[in-house]
Amino acid sequence: MHEFMAELYPICRSITGDGLRETLRRIGKKIPLEITEVPSGTKVFDWTVPREWNIRDAYIKDETGRRIVDFQKSNLHVVNYSVPVKATMTLEDLKPHLHSLPEHPDWIPYRTSYYAENWGFCLAQRQLETMREGMYEVCIDSTLRDGSMSYGEYFIKGREDSEFLFSCHTCHPSLCNDNLSGIALATFLAEHLSRLELRYSYRFLFLPGTVGSIAWLSRNEGNARRIKHGLVVACVGDSGLFTYKKSRRSNAEIDRAVMHILSHNSDSYKILEFSPYGYDERQYCSPGFNLPVGSLTRSPNQSYPQYHTSGDNLDFVRAGDLAESLRMYLKVVELIENNRTYLNLNPKCEPQLGRRGLYGSLGGRAEARLNELAVLWVLNLSDGSAGLLDIAERSGMDFASIQKAASALVAHNLLRETEQRVLNSRP
Amino acid sequence: MHEFMAELYPICRSITGDGLRETLRRIGKKIPLEITEVPSGTKVFDWTVPREWNIRDAYIKDETGRRIVDFQKSNLHVVNYSVPVKATMTLEDLKPHLHSLPEHPDWIPYRTSYYAENWGFCLAQRQLETMREGMYEVCIDSTLRDGSMSYGEYFIKGREDSEFLFSCHTCHPSLCNDNLSGIALATFLAEHLSRLELRYSYRFLFLPGTVGSIAWLSRNEGNARRIKHGLVVACVGDSGLFTYKKSRRSNAEIDRAVMHILSHNSDSYKILEFSPYGYDERQYCSPGFNLPVGSLTRSPNQSYPQYHTSGDNLDFVRAGDLAESLRMYLKVVELIENNRTYLNLNPKCEPQLGRRGLYGSLGGRAEARLNELAVLWVLNLSDGSAGLLDIAERSGMDFASIQKAASALVAHNLLRETEQRVLNSRP
Amino acid sequence: MHEFMAELYPICRSITGDGLRETLRRIGKKIPLEITEVPSGTKVFDWTVPREWNIRDAYIKDETGRRIVDFQKSNLHVVNYSVPVKATMTLEDLKPHLHSLPEHPDWIPYRTSYYAENWGFCLAQRQLETMREGMYEVCIDSTLRDGSMSYGEYFIKGREDSEFLFSCHTCHPSLCNDNLSGIALATFLAEHLSRLELRYSYRFLFLPGTVGSIAWLSRNEGNARRIKHGLVVACVGDSGLFTYKKSRRSNAEIDRAVMHILSHNSDSYKILEFSPYGYDERQYCSPGFNLPVGSLTRSPNQSYPQYHTSGDNLDFVRAGDLAESLRMYLKVVELIENNRTYLNLNPKCEPQLGRRGLYGSLGGRAEARLNELAVLWVLNLSDGSAGLLDIAERSGMDFASIQKAASALVAHNLLRETEQRVLNSRP
Repeated sequence: MHEFMAELYPICRSITGDGLRETLRRIGKKIPLEITEVPSGTKVFDWTVPREWNIRDAYIKDETGRRIVDFQKSNLHVVNYSVPVKATMTLEDLKPHLHSLPEHPDWIPYRTSYYAENWGFCLAQRQLETMREGMYEVCIDSTLRDGSMSYGEYFIKGREDSEFLFSCHTCHPSLCNDNLSGIALATFLAEHLSRLELRYSYRFLFLPGTVGSIAWLSRNEGNARRIKHGLVVACVGDSGLFTYKKSRRSNAEIDRAVMHILSHNSDSYKILEFSPYGYDERQYCSPGFNLPVGSLTRSPNQSYPQYHTSGDNLDFVRAGDLAESLRMYLKVVELIENNRTYLNLNPKCEPQLGRRGLYGSLGGRAEARLNELAVLWVLNLSDGSAGLLDIAERSGMDFASIQKAASALVAHNLLRETEQRVLNSRP
Repeated sequence: MHEFMAELYPICRSITGDGLRETLRRIGKKIPLEITEVPSGTKVFDWTVPREWNIRDAYIKDETGRRIVDFQKSNLHVVNYSVPVKATMTLEDLKPHLHSLPEHPDWIPYRTSYYAENWGFCLAQRQLETMREGMYEVCIDSTLRDGSMSYGEYFIKGREDSEFLFSCHTCHPSLCNDNLSGIALATFLAEHLSRLELRYSYRFLFLPGTVGSIAWLSRNEGNARRIKHGLVVACVGDSGLFTYKKSRRSNAEIDRAVMHILSHNSDSYKILEFSPYGYDERQYCSPGFNLPVGSLTRSPNQSYPQYHTSGDNLDFVRAGDLAESLRMYLKVVELIENNRTYLNLNPKCEPQLGRRGLYGSLGGRAEARLNELAVLWVLNLSDGSAGLLDIAERSGMDFASIQKAASALVAHNLLRETEQRVLNSRP
Repeated sequence: MHEFMAELYPICRSITGDGLRETLRRIGKKIPLEITEVPSGTKVFDWTVPREWNIRDAYIKDETGRRIVDFQKSNLHVVNYSVPVKATMTLEDLKPHLHSLPEHPDWIPYRTSYYAENWGFCLAQRQLETMREGMYEVCIDSTLRDGSMSYGEYFIKGREDSEFLFSCHTCHPSLCNDNLSGIALATFLAEHLSRLELRYSYRFLFLPGTVGSIAWLSRNEGNARRIKHGLVVACVGDSGLFTYKKSRRSNAEIDRAVMHILSHNSDSYKILEFSPYGYDERQYCSPGFNLPVGSLTRSPNQSYPQYHTSGDNLDFVRAGDLAESLRMYLKVVELIENNRTYLNLNPKCEPQLGRRGLYGSLGGRAEARLNELAVLWVLNLSDGSAGLLDIAERSGMDFASIQKAASALVAHNLLRETEQRVLNSRP
């Protein structure tokens, strides 16, 4: 995944344009991505797809003709969506167009101006401080013209029509954790799942933030209704604690699944309540959709100093952390795939497990007891009102143990799968 | 308010009689009070309005003829509702009729005997200790005759018939926090609200404790059903922490409103669960009414040493504390008045706030972010199932910010008021 | 109770056989026990009643003919349900049949092999270490033949058909806390209750663990449905903290009753959530029955070092601790018997308690206040939706005070018993 990030790192992405298209093309070399182009001016709910932005070059030259700020060195140097400019001006006139971070003097900030026509340059505070009075030649060789906004989509059909959505934003230029890490993880996760036989159908969306997800929802209201679980994939490559931001529903199956996996696989992690600020969960969780979509990250947006600066680079994201994030996502998928509800076929008193070899004969003592207990919990709670995640939660046991016990019981005809029903008398 | 308290302080109030009447008359000079006289002997639910008590003078004279205990100096000296007495007796015979506070030797206790015919004097322990053997002349020049019990009522009609009740007891003689402070606050609150255009109708009751509220409820069962919110106003002038005692319902709108206001406007405060002991909330919250009436006080009854003693005087209550209490009451009223439910008219994805000037352009950065977040919360939760207080509670934001955001969204046709409905799918 | 334990201590009990029969016979001398014999081979749900096991003698003799392990000294020396054996063998061949506790070298462990044919001896680790190489004569003079499994039952008819079940296992040989303590407590409790006039019917079961309760449930499905409250009685004689393991329902009346009694009568105690591991609550709480049966113990099974060893002897269980346990059980019974729901006959405002002598005249001041408050709570919450336990819980007061207040109010015609109903508007 880290290599793939490195490959995508230099490309100048935005919410439209050729950088975004090139990114989708490279993802498409790993998984069969379907690309949609939504023309500029298209109404998507309350929004309008903006004109397409492309950029070839940009710089500030000092009086000696030297490029002191150069887009070729870092695409963060230009305010994303800057309108074209070609002028010579005093430092005083230029300064309102220059952005830096006094508190992090070595980093270039990331700035955008998608919906207000403007232009500007971003640079390190230390560099800004070296700029002397004098005339500067500024050039932004960009275009802002009718075109289209691109997004990519990969759908894996499972046995059920219900979908598990993974969505990541692909609009940030040379920034790694936010969100080349999410792009890489989603790509590798999709590639992995495509080789499995799956219960749920899986949909992976690679789209520009906000207007991209709004466009997708606007064009897929029917599909959206099939989304039973979803995660926004972002900021998954730093070394911070795992952080789960709940869906608006707050106790959806995806919320409980992720919290269960984190609690059994991580010594320390954070749970955040839903808030309507963040990434595209804002749109998926808008009241007209209210989809069960949460977000599983490491350090979430705005919580680390490198966020939206050139400090969020290929060194900030480590291959090992990325891999650990992918493993956690896979565990969540595995839980959701296997969270079924069973019916105890021998509900009156315990069945005699001993004569079936399900009791006291499962190997080492400590492990055996654990497994026996899982068997007893599954039998005790499988009255049709509780799924395996419910059982794992109530017993305090790991989902994998519970699932293993259920499988053994099914094999011995003591359990069969059923639809979950809510019992009035449920304890 | 403190001046008004000082004006009312010398009057000898009781649950009936001219002191109570005079108090109501003076309140009536500030707000148009309707006075009701309920004749002695009237049945009010399980109770009977007692005979009317009046007192002109009372004293204990020693053998030299000197008034050593004198009603003219403090009306607390006489056990309230003492029957007339005129006698000369030994100290031994007198002592069972003398009440003092050994643990607070300088304070005169406050004692009553409304429903058992009795008489007595209250005095400081230090004074009691100076009384030598000998004969004492005791005189209580009181009357206990058929008459009536008075209470005052002020009703402000709002747009809705639903009522917000403020009730305070007016039966205590020269005691300030309990409850001249409540009388003063309720009077000034009523006077202030009378000048506003209001959503709810407001009812202010000034009545003798227990039998007064029972009489009012007995004569106003229909009105009582219109009470949607209510507060018993008492002990609002000392410097103790704000204390809210919940209504019997425990999570009524008034309960949540007061707790929200306290949590956002006070560093430290106390919440007490409902209990059937205290002031007139006992009657409003009796099971046959179960009205949503709580009580917002500073130090509640029985929790401060000056309670029901001459130590609860004009020095114990400070003008600044009274004013702070009034401000807190006003904030509660403001919240309740504005706790409406709205419907997001653009529920599918977020509306584009930027082009409406609702995003990123609301002044200073920190404040702007706060307001944007309020705007996003209101949009996200306004599906008809949540009112503004629900939104304030879930977001953790101050009600005023949420309300301001809602107003801005209404102005931009992104929101309209609606009836609150409970959604099955509500998270 | 301790004497009764001492009487039963030497008997070699098992899940079938004459030791069990003799135990039931002796219980039957104290309470009129009905004995059921279930023939070997009878199907009881998924289980089959095993053949009957009896034992006369067993020993290991060394080469000098000395009995070095002797069943006559302790019946724990033989693995319970050992098949007959008569052989001479080397220490090496014998060793797989010898069980000891290295971590407690002076105690004989308790082992069983009910459902797998096997034989063995249990002995202290210190003794095992003294055994030298050589030939040993081993003899187990037992029989395993078709016969029957015995259990005892005592039913006390109360005014209602609903039943309160007490169940204890009677299959353990010379072990005191587990479970002669339970047998003794249940016997004395039954004897005590038989002399009272009771609201509920009471059923006491003395049965072999697991297969015994399964057999009873299999033969009494109809009766089982009448069980409204139940406790498994075990481990009630040691000096550990009271421990309550909740029923599967977790908030059944029995759960709340025991927790209330413990919280008001014990400085320190433990509450365990239900788990499908333990004693016969496993069967009563199987999903096909889901009976409200918890377990009130001192130190629960497996939580003390003496558990299932010869250390669980007559010294480990103290008469005083047993008596304290019985008192706690009696308090639970008393609460359940008296947990009725009443209707306030004067629900609008408080009734005038003073003229009925219910207010301020109940003796010493602190006690009086307590009782007044109990009276006020009962009046306030008795709207038909709350029983006395609900009122005790909400008020934080002891059930006994609440019940006393209710009795006084009934005597004054202010309250009458009613069916509990759930109110929509219940706070």
